[in-house]
Formats: sequence, structure tokens, C-alpha cells
Amino acid sequence: MLRELFTPSVQHSLDIIGIFVFAISGALLAVRKNFDVFGIAVLAEVTALGGGLFRDLVIGAVPPAAFTDLGYFLTPLVATVLVFFLHPEVERIQGAVNVFDAAGLGLFCVTGATKAYDFGLGLTASAAMGLATAVGGGVLRDVLANEVPSLLRWDRDLYAVPAMVGAAMVVVCIRFDALNAATSTFAAATAFLLRLAAMRFHWRAPRAWNRRSSAVEEA
Amino acid sequence: MLRELFTPSVQHSLDIIGIFVFAISGALLAVRKNFDVFGIAVLAEVTALGGGLFRDLVIGAVPPAAFTDLGYFLTPLVATVLVFFLHPEVERIQGAVNVFDAAGLGLFCVTGATKAYDFGLGLTASAAMGLATAVGGGVLRDVLANEVPSLLRWDRDLYAVPAMVGAAMVVVCIRFDALNAATSTFAAATAFLLRLAAMRFHWRAPRAWNRRSSAVEEA
Amino acid sequence: MLRELFTPSVQHSLDIIGIFVFAISGALLAVRKNFDVFGIAVLAEVTALGGGLFRDLVIGAVPPAAFTDLGYFLTPLVATVLVFFLHPEVERIQGAVNVFDAAGLGLFCVTGATKAYDFGLGLTASAAMGLATAVGGGVLRDVLANEVPSLLRWDRDLYAVPAMVGAAMVVVCIRFDALNAATSTFAAATAFLLRLAAMRFHWRAPRAWNRRSSAVEEA
Repeated sequence: MLRELFTPSVQHSLDIIGIFVFAISGALLAVRKNFDVFGIAVLAEVTALGGGLFRDLVIGAVPPAAFTDLGYFLTPLVATVLVFFLHPEVERIQGAVNVFDAAGLGLFCVTGATKAYDFGLGLTASAAMGLATAVGGGVLRDVLANEVPSLLRWDRDLYAVPAMVGAAMVVVCIRFDALNAATSTFAAATAFLLRLAAMRFHWRAPRAWNRRSSAVEEA
Repeated sequence: MLRELFTPSVQHSLDIIGIFVFAISGALLAVRKNFDVFGIAVLAEVTALGGGLFRDLVIGAVPPAAFTDLGYFLTPLVATVLVFFLHPEVERIQGAVNVFDAAGLGLFCVTGATKAYDFGLGLTASAAMGLATAVGGGVLRDVLANEVPSLLRWDRDLYAVPAMVGAAMVVVCIRFDALNAATSTFAAATAFLLRLAAMRFHWRAPRAWNRRSSAVEEA
Repeated sequence: MLRELFTPSVQHSLDIIGIFVFAISGALLAVRKNFDVFGIAVLAEVTALGGGLFRDLVIGAVPPAAFTDLGYFLTPLVATVLVFFLHPEVERIQGAVNVFDAAGLGLFCVTGATKAYDFGLGLTASAAMGLATAVGGGVLRDVLANEVPSLLRWDRDLYAVPAMVGAAMVVVCIRFDALNAATSTFAAATAFLLRLAAMRFHWRAPRAWNRRSSAVEEA
């Protein structure tokens, strides 16, 4: 049973928004890779639902929410139709899409960590599952598109760290029995704002020590 | 318990045939990618069993059929031996292989959707699982071979749509309580014939609207 | 319940060693691919825990050991720190790393097969799961790094065969009710030594018959 931090309808609406913006990011990559309309739909579904699907398989919540809630399944198809017809317009508002993607990141790291804890995982494992829920869909998206996951690349703005921070805040709150609607909103907002700041100021993570001097650059 | 549409031995024979032809397609790609004999065997196994394995993990049917039925596991190894020694001959009958692959597609979308429904998924989710069962192995094959999944590419003949139609017919039959050996055979045959027609007439799905005008072609 | 071949603390120490050396191999590839520090950590975790995670999902052991034992999760992070600061030194002792990797391979094929059998899989399926446990992490590592899995390539020294032999020895011992600390150590040692010999003498598996004459070399 998922801990009820918000009323179910609020929680559900937030989930749908997160799924929608992740699906947009998958559909846009599919258009850039020149996939056909079914490829766009598949990449939208995988990006939006992949992280939660992985989490549900790991914690034993089968069948996963992605296959029991019709809204979760249909939302990426709406994103597909939108991107299919309007992708130049959607590309043009890439900035806005990135903001929504950051919101999805913040939301999913919190709900992922919470659900994992409710299914009996320890605190550290729950934080790890929160991170995996938030970034897993994007990794699957890049693997299917045959690209190096942007999560792993040094030349991309920080993506994992904001989700880590949000998920860690959740488990700290759980540890001190202080997880409620206010604190979890605060954790999601922190992850969201950190990601916005990372994009704004191009925060990047360091590569291996001595990397520049000791190896040929391969990008 | 899998709904008994056919006698178990007929059902099992059909499964083995589907697994065999999918394994041939995996083994042929492995030869083209210059893999060694173990790489050929791994790609044959993954292509043949990957879709069903994914379905079984999602619906909670563990251990998956791929690991409980020895015939399912050994059939891809037979395909491996065949392709290893005779691959020029197998390449030459690529047309025949494609026909069998279409048969596997038709069969797996029907059995996948049926099994998912028997494990408690809803109608839409069962149709989605039928599609995933039919195409999942091929996607895993292409990911392991480090290629863009041919399922997603616009320059390949329709593959997902026939499986979608077959799986959709199954859940419509379930909805109206009309699923039996005759109707499920009809659904599988429809998917099979649609795929044959797609190959014969090179049916393709559209890429994103305005794609040609607004973006550089990247293949 | 995992069959107790060794005292739990010995078993746990062996697992941690195997996880550590696999994590080193993942972290080194991440450095070579120019990933940032979080990419290094992700690839270390995936390489070290991926094979066991796959096994646990398939046999229904959820939540998987990777998420219930904190030591399993933290060990790859230690490897990450080490490689991050000292990767030129670690590269220089690549030979030693390969020896440890061979030890991990021998260990994981044995524990993987044993655990699969304890969860009710048949003998052949248990051997297959032993192989998957030993090599699965490396395959996931290469997929995430967007490379053709080295397991599948003909131009790499034998990797799968030693694990297959070790896993097969385990299930033969199980079949004749002779699995104990001595025989399982012998199986792990055999796999370990076979892998060392494969590296020393560059044993390779054949590619498809007629491959050289009938097709263009593509590497």
C-alpha cells in the first residue's frame, strides 16, 4: 500500500504530469533519431514508465503500476500524438520541456523512494530505488536509441545528483518519522530546484582524476 | 494456469516453432555481426525467449516459462548449430525465414495477450503485453548487437502493427467472451498475414509530421 | 534460503570480493569512456550487481540481495572512489584486476547456480542461471557504455565457457547429491583456472563455419 502523502487524486495527478513530461522527452529523441510513429510511441512509453517499471519489478510490486493504471499507459500516447504533429513547436519550447522534466525528476525520486520503503526495503536501498525510478526511464530511452545514456556523460549538466538529494531527504525524513505531505513536497521541490540550477549554471561533475593528462580524449 | 485454447501438445508445438524461428533470426544477426559461436547462442536465446521472459517478469509468473520448460531452452541451441554450419544456406532462404518469423509474431502476440489476461491484467494492458511478447525478443537482440532496434526504424516494413492488431483482436474476443481455438487462430492468422503483406508491399509507418522539411536526415 | 556451503561469514566475504572486482572492471570502462564520477559509480554498481539482480528477478527472490544487503551496495562505491583517484595505477595493474575478475567469475557461476536450484529451478535452468549471474553484469556494463558486449565478440578470449563449466559442475554435483564446500570450491576453482588459461593462451571460440570465405569482415 502506497503511503498516502497526498490525497489519492492529487498524487495521481502529479504522477500523470511526471509521466507526460518524461514521455515528451522520449518522443522528441525518437523524432531526432528519425523513428516512425510507432517508434515514437514505444520510446515515449519506455521513457515515461521504465523507471517505475524497474522499481516495481525489484520491490516485487507485480503487476507493475504501469500495467494496472490505464492512465499511466495512455498518457505517453497523448504525448506521442502531440510531438508527432507539433514537434517543431515542442522543440522550440525545449526550455519549458526541461522545466517540466525537472519537475518529473523531483516528483519521481520522492514517490520512488517512498514506495520502495513501503515494500520493505531498507533506508539506503529505498534512496537508491528513488534515484532509479527518477532516472531509469531516461537510461532505457538512450539505450533503445543506441546512444550513450546522457546520465553517464560528463558533458551534460548534473541530472542524477538532484534526484539523489531528493531521495536522500525522503529517507532521512522516514528515519526520523517526519515524512508527510509538507516534507515530501519540500524534498521534491529541492530536487526540482537543484536540477533547474544545474541547467542554468551548467553544473557538471568531475571526471576521473588525472583524466585529462593521462588519456586520449574520446568524447 | 494458461487458458487452454488448444490441447497442450498443440500449444507446446506452436510455441517451439515460434521460438525456433525467432532464434534463427537472432543467430543470423550474430553471424552478420561476426560473433563467435557462444555469442551466436546467446543472441539466439535472447531473441527467442526475451519477449516471453519480459512478460513473465511483469505479470509475476516466476520462474518464467523460459527457465522451467527444457524444450524452450534447448530449441535456440538447435537453431544455433544449424546457423553455425549452414548460415550461407539459411541466408539464401531468408524469404522463408521471414515467413516463419511472421508466424512467430502472430503466435506470440496471441499467447502473450492471453497469458497476461489469465494473470489478472486488464484488457488494454493484456494487449500491450501481447505486443511486448511478440516484439520484445527482437528489441533485446538489436540492443545486445548494439544496433538501433529495427522495430523503431522508419525504413523497415511494419512489424509492430500486425502484432498490435492480433493482440487487440484477442482482448476484444475476451471482452465479448468469445475467445476459443477458432477465434485465437483467426487473430494469429490475421497478424501473420498482415506482416506478410507489410513485407510484400513495403508498408511503412509515417515519420513525424514536417520531419522532412524541418530537420537534417540522419538515417 | 541459500544452501549453506560455507559458513555465512566466509560466503559473504567471497561475495564482497567478487562484487568489488567486477565493480573495478565497470569503473575502469567508465573512465575509458570519459564518464563523470556519477557515471563511474552507476557503471560500477551495474557491473557488480547486475548479474545477481537479473538472477533474483528471474527466480523470484525479491527484493534482490543487491537491495537488502548494504555491503553489496556500498562495495562498488568504494571501487568507484579508488578508480576515480587512482585509475592510472589501477590500469597499470590490469593483469591483477583480470585475475580477480576471473575469481569473481568462478565464484558467481557457482553461487548463482546454487541459489537458482534452491529456488526450485531445474538442473539445466540452474546451470543457465549460474552462467547468467557470472556474465550478466558485464553484458549490462557494455550495453550501458554503448559497446558490443565483449562476451559476444569473437576477438576476445573465452569468458562464457569457464563459467559454463563451473555452473555445469555444480548441477552435476547436485544431481548426484555431492554438493558441499569441497566440491563447490573445486567447481569455482576450475572456472577460475580455465579463465586464467584462456587469457594466458588467448583461447578463442570459432566464428560461424565458412564465415571467412563468405562474408566481408566487419570486426
